[in-house]
Amino acid sequence: MELKKSSKKLITLLTDFGSLDSYVGIMKGVIYSINPDATIVDLTHEIPPQDLHSGRFNLLRSVPFFPPETIHVAIVDPGVGTKRRGIAVKFKQGYLIGPDNGLMSGVFDIYPPESAVELTNTKYWRDENPSSTFHGRDIFSPVAAHLSKGVPFLDLGKEIGVDTLTKLELPKVVATEKGALGVIQYIDVYGNIISNIPNEHVNNKSFTADIASKSIKSVLAYGDADSGELLTLEGSHGFIEIAVNKGNAAKLLNCSVGEPITVKII
Amino acid sequence: MELKKSSKKLITLLTDFGSLDSYVGIMKGVIYSINPDATIVDLTHEIPPQDLHSGRFNLLRSVPFFPPETIHVAIVDPGVGTKRRGIAVKFKQGYLIGPDNGLMSGVFDIYPPESAVELTNTKYWRDENPSSTFHGRDIFSPVAAHLSKGVPFLDLGKEIGVDTLTKLELPKVVATEKGALGVIQYIDVYGNIISNIPNEHVNNKSFTADIASKSIKSVLAYGDADSGELLTLEGSHGFIEIAVNKGNAAKLLNCSVGEPITVKII
Amino acid sequence: MELKKSSKKLITLLTDFGSLDSYVGIMKGVIYSINPDATIVDLTHEIPPQDLHSGRFNLLRSVPFFPPETIHVAIVDPGVGTKRRGIAVKFKQGYLIGPDNGLMSGVFDIYPPESAVELTNTKYWRDENPSSTFHGRDIFSPVAAHLSKGVPFLDLGKEIGVDTLTKLELPKVVATEKGALGVIQYIDVYGNIISNIPNEHVNNKSFTADIASKSIKSVLAYGDADSGELLTLEGSHGFIEIAVNKGNAAKLLNCSVGEPITVKII
Repeated sequence: MELKKSSKKLITLLTDFGSLDSYVGIMKGVIYSINPDATIVDLTHEIPPQDLHSGRFNLLRSVPFFPPETIHVAIVDPGVGTKRRGIAVKFKQGYLIGPDNGLMSGVFDIYPPESAVELTNTKYWRDENPSSTFHGRDIFSPVAAHLSKGVPFLDLGKEIGVDTLTKLELPKVVATEKGALGVIQYIDVYGNIISNIPNEHVNNKSFTADIASKSIKSVLAYGDADSGELLTLEGSHGFIEIAVNKGNAAKLLNCSVGEPITVKII
Repeated sequence: MELKKSSKKLITLLTDFGSLDSYVGIMKGVIYSINPDATIVDLTHEIPPQDLHSGRFNLLRSVPFFPPETIHVAIVDPGVGTKRRGIAVKFKQGYLIGPDNGLMSGVFDIYPPESAVELTNTKYWRDENPSSTFHGRDIFSPVAAHLSKGVPFLDLGKEIGVDTLTKLELPKVVATEKGALGVIQYIDVYGNIISNIPNEHVNNKSFTADIASKSIKSVLAYGDADSGELLTLEGSHGFIEIAVNKGNAAKLLNCSVGEPITVKII
Repeated sequence: MELKKSSKKLITLLTDFGSLDSYVGIMKGVIYSINPDATIVDLTHEIPPQDLHSGRFNLLRSVPFFPPETIHVAIVDPGVGTKRRGIAVKFKQGYLIGPDNGLMSGVFDIYPPESAVELTNTKYWRDENPSSTFHGRDIFSPVAAHLSKGVPFLDLGKEIGVDTLTKLELPKVVATEKGALGVIQYIDVYGNIISNIPNEHVNNKSFTADIASKSIKSVLAYGDADSGELLTLEGSHGFIEIAVNKGNAAKLLNCSVGEPITVKII
């Protein structure tokens, strides 16, 4: 019980606010003003501006590594100040707080939402007249801080159906006799290409990945390929990856998110 | 009383040190070596090198969101190692520590300084012979850590008159019959243009903002304008802003800090 | 004793993971899942990808400013997933955890290693089958978290000889009659050039530094030179530096790491 209490104080932040301005620092000031005992972790603030797909991916791959009861505040919010809903969602592994625009829907594929509220209770906002441009400061951060202090989840607003939550759809992976067809889901900072094909489709067997007219052979580790050579492997995020040992695969292949990838066991 | 003690342990850092080097990490090592119970918040470390105006703005808009007794360490310091004073200033909302070069003066416009000391007491420095280039590590961080542990403010050095503190002057806003004349005060990471005209000059009425030979009409939220369209609104920092929905206003208008803006209620 | 316990909870992270992705956030989730009371400090995550020399320098200059018992996790790891060893090293000022590839060897020049283990005890890993690409998440972070909770150092794996640890060699500084010959060790974010010549070689005396066919005169502080002028001084990292007041010395001299520098007392 004591442990549960302690881990409930963990709040993560994922935004597209960047680090040039003090937006993120301001959100932390708001949180600590309400709950001085919170522990705050930055997931990333360098989501490309208003890029919901990148935000969705970085959120879904981060959440599983946090303890139960963690509160995740996720803000990539092109619709701030319009009628899009602000929501909080309870799931097995913790809580999500942010705009209802599909950003959270990658997490929902792993952990089905158990309960959801629209954030209508102004008592837990910084001010009952929030700005129209910075809900991260005025609504989402203070709501997270109050939740971390023990405010009951359903007090945060009006309960809404979990089936009404907005989803961002990705093309489905198609299983084939010898593997799977998928797409590029994400390109990381090193230029590593992350598909949407789960590692389970190859399951420790040797395979090839076809992309951009190249057929690439699987290895067990980046270092198993020569310097500058293309390789594919079962990636640490749980999806088949294409990379270059000591190089940038996305630049070498000149490819981008959404392009097709075909995986075949050999 | 207990609460006060707790919130006094909050220390914020604002610098132009960037994140490529471990300068900021080193300052945190110095702080935790003196006060392991401190909570440290980064405001931003991406102030353009030696840009006092940008530092001043980011500091003034961040400080109001932190709890009383917070200690703000602010370092943009072109004169490090010369005879400029190192100072600590007490004001209603907390403490400021850093060089006396005007960086803090935006905060002073909101919260008048109540008391100030020149940091001459070497007992609270890391070493009585500090480096001439890194006072953040050798003087400002250790002084902040000692203050957070309960060292009396006036022990930090020699008391100086609050009227002797250096100020950075911005052109004054001129109220007109139908609005106000001001200038661009800051351009944020999204290219949003923040004027120095307080929202109170329009006070929830419709208005136009004239800038760079364009006349722009006010909306209530970014999302109320079409994609790519110029808009103006009462900004979340407390000043009239000019922005582009899903775009970069500063690039579109090709304008920079100091250029004039005219606001008219319509 | 209580203090020792408390400071052992400090964990620093230095990586080349950048801030665009949530890799670092994920490592923090893993650490807090094991030890909710840890305090985590980022040294820097912007080491150029796989640049062991830059990682080595940033680590060696940061470690001395942290309290005893601090645990430093350092990951620049071109060989991840190959047979290079994962290690933990105990030294006077704390612990180092990461790959055995020379990254830590700058610290060893200051603090000789007292004891070392190869990380073979899978009980302290996140999973006994770690990914081949993200040992930061699967091995190094969980090991650091367990160590911070009091797991005995020698339980982390198989003890190995401290003389077997991998070293990154830099050219040695050669003392001359009137000074020393050295090389550029590092260029920081401002373009300041940091040599590998310790300040002790000039010891508060006036000197010149010869580099790229220029002979530069020493000053006491950046601000003692005119704007745009080259200067040299005893740097805050403990090594002779070359800089430009309000400018970028590395760009002005068009020089890079490894180039020779000659220092002469005058």
